[in-house]
Amino acid sequence: MQVQQNVNTASSYAQVFNLPHLGPLPELDVEQWLNTEQPLSLEQCRGRVVALYAFQMLCPSCISQALPQAKQLRQAFTHEDLVVIGLHSVFEHHSAMPEVSLRAFLQEYEIHFPVAIDRSSSMGIPHSMQNYALQGTPSLLLIDQSGRLRRHYFGPADDIQLGAEIMELVLSDV
Amino acid sequence: MQVQQNVNTASSYAQVFNLPHLGPLPELDVEQWLNTEQPLSLEQCRGRVVALYAFQMLCPSCISQALPQAKQLRQAFTHEDLVVIGLHSVFEHHSAMPEVSLRAFLQEYEIHFPVAIDRSSSMGIPHSMQNYALQGTPSLLLIDQSGRLRRHYFGPADDIQLGAEIMELVLSDV
Amino acid sequence: MQVQQNVNTASSYAQVFNLPHLGPLPELDVEQWLNTEQPLSLEQCRGRVVALYAFQMLCPSCISQALPQAKQLRQAFTHEDLVVIGLHSVFEHHSAMPEVSLRAFLQEYEIHFPVAIDRSSSMGIPHSMQNYALQGTPSLLLIDQSGRLRRHYFGPADDIQLGAEIMELVLSDV
Amino acid sequence: MQVQQNVNTASSYAQVFNLPHLGPLPELDVEQWLNTEQPLSLEQCRGRVVALYAFQMLCPSCISQALPQAKQLRQAFTHEDLVVIGLHSVFEHHSAMPEVSLRAFLQEYEIHFPVAIDRSSSMGIPHSMQNYALQGTPSLLLIDQSGRLRRHYFGPADDIQLGAEIMELVLSDV
Repeated sequence: MQVQQNVNTASSYAQVFNLPHLGPLPELDVEQWLNTEQPLSLEQCRGRVVALYAFQMLCPSCISQALPQAKQLRQAFTHEDLVVIGLHSVFEHHSAMPEVSLRAFLQEYEIHFPVAIDRSSSMGIPHSMQNYALQGTPSLLLIDQSGRLRRHYFGPADDIQLGAEIMELVLSDV
Repeated sequence: MQVQQNVNTASSYAQVFNLPHLGPLPELDVEQWLNTEQPLSLEQCRGRVVALYAFQMLCPSCISQALPQAKQLRQAFTHEDLVVIGLHSVFEHHSAMPEVSLRAFLQEYEIHFPVAIDRSSSMGIPHSMQNYALQGTPSLLLIDQSGRLRRHYFGPADDIQLGAEIMELVLSDV
Repeated sequence: MQVQQNVNTASSYAQVFNLPHLGPLPELDVEQWLNTEQPLSLEQCRGRVVALYAFQMLCPSCISQALPQAKQLRQAFTHEDLVVIGLHSVFEHHSAMPEVSLRAFLQEYEIHFPVAIDRSSSMGIPHSMQNYALQGTPSLLLIDQSGRLRRHYFGPADDIQLGAEIMELVLSDV
Repeated sequence: MQVQQNVNTASSYAQVFNLPHLGPLPELDVEQWLNTEQPLSLEQCRGRVVALYAFQMLCPSCISQALPQAKQLRQAFTHEDLVVIGLHSVFEHHSAMPEVSLRAFLQEYEIHFPVAIDRSSSMGIPHSMQNYALQGTPSLLLIDQSGRLRRHYFGPADDIQLGAEIMELVLSDV
């Protein structure tokens, strides 16, 4: 391997990730908030990066991969830099995951960041899940300090790359 | 949890990691280079971030943790942004890890980034290991685009935090 | 290490595990059976070994360790040799784990062996859990071909040792 | 699932594994023994089961899977029931794995059971590896108390099944 040279910071930046702007993200449309005294909104998160994890409490890869990663993000970044939010978007087994079950789940898995319950719809797919065009769970949306969607993961996100992407958004000018 | 507000980017930056300057790092003092046609130097890596992994081929946690992480870094960042270098710093079992063994090791573990063989000394601790005050293996040094040491890990480094720290150095002005 | 000699099969047997007889196990006292057309009883399992896994669907180590092991047992042994039974013994968060939630859980985690719902009591600890003096979840009871308890695990059981213990019970005369 | 009934111990036994007799295994043909004061032979292991692990110190899956399993076997069974032997069968990178390197490797990985160095041949494949028709490393041979080969694994062996198979051989009449 021959390491290349003559690279400046600007082009580095461009080549690293240069996360695309996927447009402004609509506000969360949810029924209820857990793990927070007051409801949150994406609007009030401006100036900070947001990692929004859509999950279901009976989704195996949410439990084994996405939620542990969300907890690690909460440890790696300060509250001033990153807001971690869970979005419980139930699109199957609706009657199996009521609020009382979700509350026990969060306690057993020691999830302490704010979790919103997505607003149910008559068609089965809850509202925020529809608005954000999520394909299933787990999904992870990275939102920049201006409220724009910059990354949309469906399935697992690599830890190293995710840490780097969030830092890119933390350091970028609004 | 109550999410805090009124945070600007500048203070975010300050709070994220704000990796300290641990001083300029002396040039590598090594016997030989593998996996590269021409010898490397830290000098010629200016303008890029360097992740320098000191390891021994018979060190269990190097094999299970540090070297797989180094390979993942190689995937996550471009060559323009990050140089990944292995430093084979043998300080025990010297006769057990000659160059011929290291070459086979690199092949079997599919390690393709440049690896330097630290210069042996009569006292057992090789030269670069002494110069960098490494406490053992695995050790990881993060070097910024100006050649200054910014982070010194002895033992495992968290993937998410490492990705973020490297990105901080990639994006910082020289 | 000096390997010892002059060992005969009989004494080997004695030294391997020689699982103690912990007494006859009372019959299961449960409310309902899932994943089976007809209710099971320990009585009808005579002539086969039984691995009885007590769990809760919101118990993290049940999900990460015990239930995957139960599924592996189901693959490793035939139905003629080993009966694998799940026992859903809810002793906390009672309202969070109703039958409809358990059914969805079993489907999502692809658990196909019979699962009994422990009979609830007014005191919170369900009946079979009381009768078997279980200390919590996950618990694993190994029952021999005569219906006697031979091993009682609370927490994780080592895969290799468990495979060996079950084989000991499969091969032992009734 | 409908659990079957009317199964007796004898047919259970027959259905469990009933490990085939793969013939008497020739004696080990090796250059040297480590981790033991006196050379071992399969002959002197009669009356005990033998787990013979063929490995190379630079073989990644030997390090990550087979050797940790061998160490777990050493914990799970007594010396009276099971002899665990390592066989260092180098068939590639011959000059990279001399005895001095192997000794350091065993120390670093805390492998304390006896390890034999397979006898090298002019054709590259060492003698025992040829005699036992091993396809590569890791390989695991299970040898019964009469010295007959009963199981030949190339690649990973499942922990639960392996524990059961060894117990079957421990309990079987010679």
